[in-house]
Amino acid sequence: MAEKKYVYFFGNGKADGNAEMKNLLGGKGANLAEMTNIGLPVPPGFTITTEVCTYFYQHNRSYPPELKTQVEEGMRKIEEIIGRKFGSEEAPLLVSVRSGAPVSMPGMMDTVLNLGLNDKTVWGLAKMANNERFAFDSYRRFIQMFGNVVMGIEASKLEEPLEKMKEEKGVELDTELDAEDLKKLVEILKERVKELAGKDFPQDPWDQLWEAIGAVFGSWNNERAIVYRKINNIPDDLGTAVNIVAMVFGNLGDDSGTGVAFTRNPSTGEKGIFGEYLPNAQGEDVVAGIRTPIPISREEGGDESLEAKFPDVYKELVRIAEILENHFKDMQDMEFTIEKMKLWMLQTRTGKRTARAAVRIAVDMVDEGLIDEKTAIMRIDPSSLDQLLHPMIDPKAPKKVIGVGLPASPGAATGKVVFSAEEAEKLAEKGEKVILVRIETSPEDIKGMNAAQGILTARGGMTSHAAVVARGMGKACVVGCGDITIDYEEEKFTGKDGVVVKKGDWITIDGSTGEVMLGQVPMVEPELGGYFGRLMEMADKYRKLGVRTNADTPHDSEVARKFGAEGIGLCRTEHMFFEGDRIDAVRQMILADNEEDLQNALAKLKEYQKSDFYGILKVMEGLPVTIRLLDPPLHEFLPNTDEEIEELASKIGKSAKELKEKAESLREFNPMLGHRGCRLGITFPEIYDMQVEAIFEAACELKKEGYEVFPEIMIPLVGFKKELQFFKDRIPGIAKRVFEKYGVEVPYKIGTMIELPRAALTADEIGEIAEFFSFGTNDLTQTTLGISRDDAGKFLKKYIEGEIITRDPFMTIDVNGVGQLVKIAAEKGRKVNPQIKLGICGEHGGDPDSIDFFHTVGLNYVSCSPYRVPIARLAAAQAAIRHES
Amino acid sequence: MAEKKYVYFFGNGKADGNAEMKNLLGGKGANLAEMTNIGLPVPPGFTITTEVCTYFYQHNRSYPPELKTQVEEGMRKIEEIIGRKFGSEEAPLLVSVRSGAPVSMPGMMDTVLNLGLNDKTVWGLAKMANNERFAFDSYRRFIQMFGNVVMGIEASKLEEPLEKMKEEKGVELDTELDAEDLKKLVEILKERVKELAGKDFPQDPWDQLWEAIGAVFGSWNNERAIVYRKINNIPDDLGTAVNIVAMVFGNLGDDSGTGVAFTRNPSTGEKGIFGEYLPNAQGEDVVAGIRTPIPISREEGGDESLEAKFPDVYKELVRIAEILENHFKDMQDMEFTIEKMKLWMLQTRTGKRTARAAVRIAVDMVDEGLIDEKTAIMRIDPSSLDQLLHPMIDPKAPKKVIGVGLPASPGAATGKVVFSAEEAEKLAEKGEKVILVRIETSPEDIKGMNAAQGILTARGGMTSHAAVVARGMGKACVVGCGDITIDYEEEKFTGKDGVVVKKGDWITIDGSTGEVMLGQVPMVEPELGGYFGRLMEMADKYRKLGVRTNADTPHDSEVARKFGAEGIGLCRTEHMFFEGDRIDAVRQMILADNEEDLQNALAKLKEYQKSDFYGILKVMEGLPVTIRLLDPPLHEFLPNTDEEIEELASKIGKSAKELKEKAESLREFNPMLGHRGCRLGITFPEIYDMQVEAIFEAACELKKEGYEVFPEIMIPLVGFKKELQFFKDRIPGIAKRVFEKYGVEVPYKIGTMIELPRAALTADEIGEIAEFFSFGTNDLTQTTLGISRDDAGKFLKKYIEGEIITRDPFMTIDVNGVGQLVKIAAEKGRKVNPQIKLGICGEHGGDPDSIDFFHTVGLNYVSCSPYRVPIARLAAAQAAIRHES
Repeated sequence: MAEKKYVYFFGNGKADGNAEMKNLLGGKGANLAEMTNIGLPVPPGFTITTEVCTYFYQHNRSYPPELKTQVEEGMRKIEEIIGRKFGSEEAPLLVSVRSGAPVSMPGMMDTVLNLGLNDKTVWGLAKMANNERFAFDSYRRFIQMFGNVVMGIEASKLEEPLEKMKEEKGVELDTELDAEDLKKLVEILKERVKELAGKDFPQDPWDQLWEAIGAVFGSWNNERAIVYRKINNIPDDLGTAVNIVAMVFGNLGDDSGTGVAFTRNPSTGEKGIFGEYLPNAQGEDVVAGIRTPIPISREEGGDESLEAKFPDVYKELVRIAEILENHFKDMQDMEFTIEKMKLWMLQTRTGKRTARAAVRIAVDMVDEGLIDEKTAIMRIDPSSLDQLLHPMIDPKAPKKVIGVGLPASPGAATGKVVFSAEEAEKLAEKGEKVILVRIETSPEDIKGMNAAQGILTARGGMTSHAAVVARGMGKACVVGCGDITIDYEEEKFTGKDGVVVKKGDWITIDGSTGEVMLGQVPMVEPELGGYFGRLMEMADKYRKLGVRTNADTPHDSEVARKFGAEGIGLCRTEHMFFEGDRIDAVRQMILADNEEDLQNALAKLKEYQKSDFYGILKVMEGLPVTIRLLDPPLHEFLPNTDEEIEELASKIGKSAKELKEKAESLREFNPMLGHRGCRLGITFPEIYDMQVEAIFEAACELKKEGYEVFPEIMIPLVGFKKELQFFKDRIPGIAKRVFEKYGVEVPYKIGTMIELPRAALTADEIGEIAEFFSFGTNDLTQTTLGISRDDAGKFLKKYIEGEIITRDPFMTIDVNGVGQLVKIAAEKGRKVNPQIKLGICGEHGGDPDSIDFFHTVGLNYVSCSPYRVPIARLAAAQAAIRHES
Repeated sequence: MAEKKYVYFFGNGKADGNAEMKNLLGGKGANLAEMTNIGLPVPPGFTITTEVCTYFYQHNRSYPPELKTQVEEGMRKIEEIIGRKFGSEEAPLLVSVRSGAPVSMPGMMDTVLNLGLNDKTVWGLAKMANNERFAFDSYRRFIQMFGNVVMGIEASKLEEPLEKMKEEKGVELDTELDAEDLKKLVEILKERVKELAGKDFPQDPWDQLWEAIGAVFGSWNNERAIVYRKINNIPDDLGTAVNIVAMVFGNLGDDSGTGVAFTRNPSTGEKGIFGEYLPNAQGEDVVAGIRTPIPISREEGGDESLEAKFPDVYKELVRIAEILENHFKDMQDMEFTIEKMKLWMLQTRTGKRTARAAVRIAVDMVDEGLIDEKTAIMRIDPSSLDQLLHPMIDPKAPKKVIGVGLPASPGAATGKVVFSAEEAEKLAEKGEKVILVRIETSPEDIKGMNAAQGILTARGGMTSHAAVVARGMGKACVVGCGDITIDYEEEKFTGKDGVVVKKGDWITIDGSTGEVMLGQVPMVEPELGGYFGRLMEMADKYRKLGVRTNADTPHDSEVARKFGAEGIGLCRTEHMFFEGDRIDAVRQMILADNEEDLQNALAKLKEYQKSDFYGILKVMEGLPVTIRLLDPPLHEFLPNTDEEIEELASKIGKSAKELKEKAESLREFNPMLGHRGCRLGITFPEIYDMQVEAIFEAACELKKEGYEVFPEIMIPLVGFKKELQFFKDRIPGIAKRVFEKYGVEVPYKIGTMIELPRAALTADEIGEIAEFFSFGTNDLTQTTLGISRDDAGKFLKKYIEGEIITRDPFMTIDVNGVGQLVKIAAEKGRKVNPQIKLGICGEHGGDPDSIDFFHTVGLNYVSCSPYRVPIARLAAAQAAIRHES
């Protein structure tokens, strides 16, 4: 029997693996193999497969017996190609050890460079490079990195001696330290490691190698990695691979360097190489954001740019970028190192990008003939469009700019300043908007970044941790803002002109310009033409689902229509009850104890509602508008505090006691399951009658003015056919009366929300008399799962963390449970009434994964908030493409 | 085409109809026909069918054109047989007009007697009977009855002149008035009618007849009838028939009389004729309870009895009773009239009886070979058994008897005295127990009687309105209690020895002895052997469903086991949390802010729970005991008022502020859908661990003492398989530890409640790891229907009244909705796990109609409160018989 292959080698233009083998080799390993195969300059190396990771966890953190020989064989092959020997005191081979999961995982251990150095081989390296300074700089880097990521010592503890030494020498940059300084530093660091880790820094290169391999596999289950997987819905059992690659050195002098480049601008999508590099540096210097790197192109980087300083390397990089794009048919994010003017490719992967860039790149690539429309559509994460749709800083608004940094992730955000990720989480949980302000961010900050509206850092470049993560999250982010000085202890920062901003103060950041502004700056709607419009056109070509919007005002309706809404799927009439002093009339209605008061209040409310409906129906001319009659329990409209009650009492001329009693009598144990929805309509028919009359009067007025309007009256919380029947018996009479009064007729429909399990289960009864069903998946989720959304905080988080459930069922529909009811209801409803229109108006209507499900069920439309309309259009197109048979 | 037949004649030993035709002829009409056919002495007459009633309501209260001729033809046939003519001034035919629905309906118009009398025919009657007094007594009765039931005048307004005249004459009985008095009375009554009805009393007999027919049909939809149908679940579209029968006269003198008799004692079930009669009286005098009638048998009625006074008639009645019982194979309730020593049968129907009598009669009839066991089982209304199971007056308890009346409906009841049906309803709605005390009751009082614990009347016999209705309702009832004098105005009554009882005072009545007692008298458990035991044995032979009980204490468990429970289906551990000062330990647990406090509290609670489980498991030795782990949200255990909070704070040495904050933080918007059930167990595993440990320790101790116990651990509110898995992963470890400690092992099961729609829908997932499902249909109804039981009062009543739904879904399972989920879950659960045990532990487990459904679904058992165990056993047997294929 052939031995199981755990190690995949690449080098000298030939690799065991290829780009298709991401699950086995991880993304990094697979692409290193692929680049080798297509003839790009990749240092030789090998990948230990993800199967070893699985084995590692299944066998109490041990390795398959075959692994040792295979790794040694891999090292031998590298030695052969490079012509140096691992552990040699003359010409030592150094390697990097890097994790590489099938999906990019910033939460994991990333890289150990310069592995193989010790007190002896460092002299070999010095001799070989003819550069002591370089050798000891590499060694001190190695001790720092290995000490941190393998031995678990806090990074700052190992950075301190370096900072101290620079201070003592009065220099600013690492490069200003000389070989003697670095030799001393190495000794200090080794001491420190011994002191903090309780053991010597390992001198045997093979020990170093195996410890590093173990650390990579171990990092798969560190807390950050687990959190990252949870946030990004990555399965826990994928495992990571380990890549061991011959070192090439960007820190060999000024003819060396290292950098990161994108084949297109990841922020705007513009075609052309885009990136940053650092001369005389190793890879970690760029990503870690410690030194601010220099742009690659002359246009941005000027005389210091790669294009200017290394013109040949630049040309080679452009050539490789083109090869890679044509090969992978997507924008690439590459890592490279220049060792004495020779370009080495260390990594390529699909580049992360802002939504704006994603849209432009997809559309451009269609135009370039690189991909087809379906591929373009499938390539955009629908949720990411959110970034393009939200308000931006109003250009006309006065603003006090207190700093400008790099525009790392577009969109504007405003919030209260916090200085730690924990604080950000804490305040966000209370519903506060915060901006996380850090000198730089690290993987520990992920949760806090996720909780913040935006992120501002004082250091770091466009590819720094903060920038990459924020773009992934679609958060506004400004990085490398040298204008601000942060004082963590005093919890404040100082900006331009000495402006001091304290914790809790409001600031606004603009991730598209890099500006940092004092206070809450007004914002405006984004433009929606151009590339975005092109993408939407494509989506509309493929989608089967209609997309409506949930809107309660003419303004929201207008926004939604601009975003492409094809009607209103849910207009909540009660929202109108809270506007201005209408609430007084509402309360008067609730508290009426005689017919006259009641009729007066209803008459007032009818006029309000009529004008609301008029406005909305007019904006939505030619499109259907589903209006839901009053839904919430009446006590929601009454005041709560004694003070408010007394104020109201004197206003309407009743005693406070009477009012309190009334409020008390309306109070409910479980309002969600209480006297609301059509139960109100049946017990107080005059309220629904008033609303229906207002709808028809508004519609008739518009009709007379020449507008075609299509009101659809929706009865909420129906559980029994007879509930709906009650209104089917009343509404036509009201319609007739109003039509006669106005002398015109308006087409209308009567239907119901399906938001109770019973309604779904008996859809074959209800469907007989309903002209449409609209799935109210918010309440349907609450009842089906027996979970009150308002109270779920206490356990739902724990459930998701403890993996009882994988997704928040209020965000993404619970397909197995709630989804089953939707399917049952759709089938039963259509069986008795093939003409019935089926839609969904819960928040799931704007969630791409849920939309995919609704497509498979064959609903007619989804309805979502105005800003999610484009997301829904795209998600619907993706669903159609995904399920094409 | 033959004319449609609307009139069914009977007379001279031959009838158009028969007993099978109850739907068409009503119960009364069908049985009159049947009695005629089998040769019993029935006066001739005819029945107008229920189809006419339907026609009447469908055609704006008019009749089919054919009806007039058919009625006239019917009258002609009666005239022929009787030899008198309707409206004749010489020998006038008089008839009775009586309603008769397919189901007995006390709420409807019942009877108009002596129809055909007017100012002229009354003289004909006088001449014919040679008795002016009789003729005018009949005429004044006719005016009173017709005036009341047909013309709608309040009965008391027409009774008043009679009372006044008796007073003026200084006599007590109607019979003491002479012909001249009655002639005067007739004139006064006619005046009164004119005054109150605004028109003359009709003199044309045909007008009288048609008006009476219209009144009967009209009474089908009077409010009382509608209420009665709702209470008794009688469909509204059955309609009533009208019976028109030649009058025979019980008021022709002392050789005449009228009475009501049962073929067996309706209170005890003892075989032998039982009933009451009044000499020289018409039927209404007996039922109305105005004069207290005399028992039929000499044993009870002595020298005044029918047996003594009318020996031949008595013999004939006994003979007829036997014929009827053999014919109908059930106990009969007969109305008869003696006209000059000749016995006439006016009605027979299945006799209403107490549960005790029903059981005895059914068992006796099996023994007599009259019916088979299945028939016997089907004949008992399972719910009625309730009467036999509830506590009776403790014979050893001291009691102050303030009156003794007739034991009209067995069982004891205690409550606050009220004097009107409205008051009874009002207080009962507030949850108060009341005894309705009335001089006599009338159909208007039905709702109040239904609301009361028991009924006490000062007048009336065993067949008076109060007695009949109370027995039907299974309420304790004492009637004809002459010892008490009621003063409605002062709202009090005076009993023996001048004891005054005011509104709101507590009394206790014993419907089995007729005693009325002051205050709340202690009660004891009923005996369950004899006939009841025989019936239960029969039921157990046929039923397929097991019957368990819901019990939380050793005492309840014992009661249930005595009632035949085959285990515990639901033991609610939290109920134990409230006993005595345990709540302190519970609160200590909830409020613990350090590990030590928590562990101390848990240790205390564990000992409490262990002793609870020990007691319950011991009582249920050899039977399974399903213990549900903690279910309610924690805030239910904390105090509510500021006072209580302060008291608790000082007790446990915390600040009131701290406590309030904690209580506030636990508060929920919708506790029903909140942090409860297994959600608590997952977020605070130590609580469930403690409970599980207590269960196993108690079980092990019992095992060591030689008891075989079968604990089943039930996880509440599971919606996701992984929730259950969480405990399936933990519990075996705890079991193992306890078993090792005690050195014994106890078999146990782990299962779950199915009480959320999602659990039902995904039963094929959950069923893979559950050893049993117990349907928690209370919560499943709340979630499926989206109705909070606590808040449903505001609309559910209106729903039932307005016929949105027909039954309270919390009483009888909503088969179409909730039932569908039960069925889905049972099928899916069995598909993945054919061994799974399926039970139901919601309150529906004790509801006969729901039990029928659970039988059809094929559950293994139902579980109900201890007192409903026998009901469930019987209902399960009936379901099995009903669905035998």
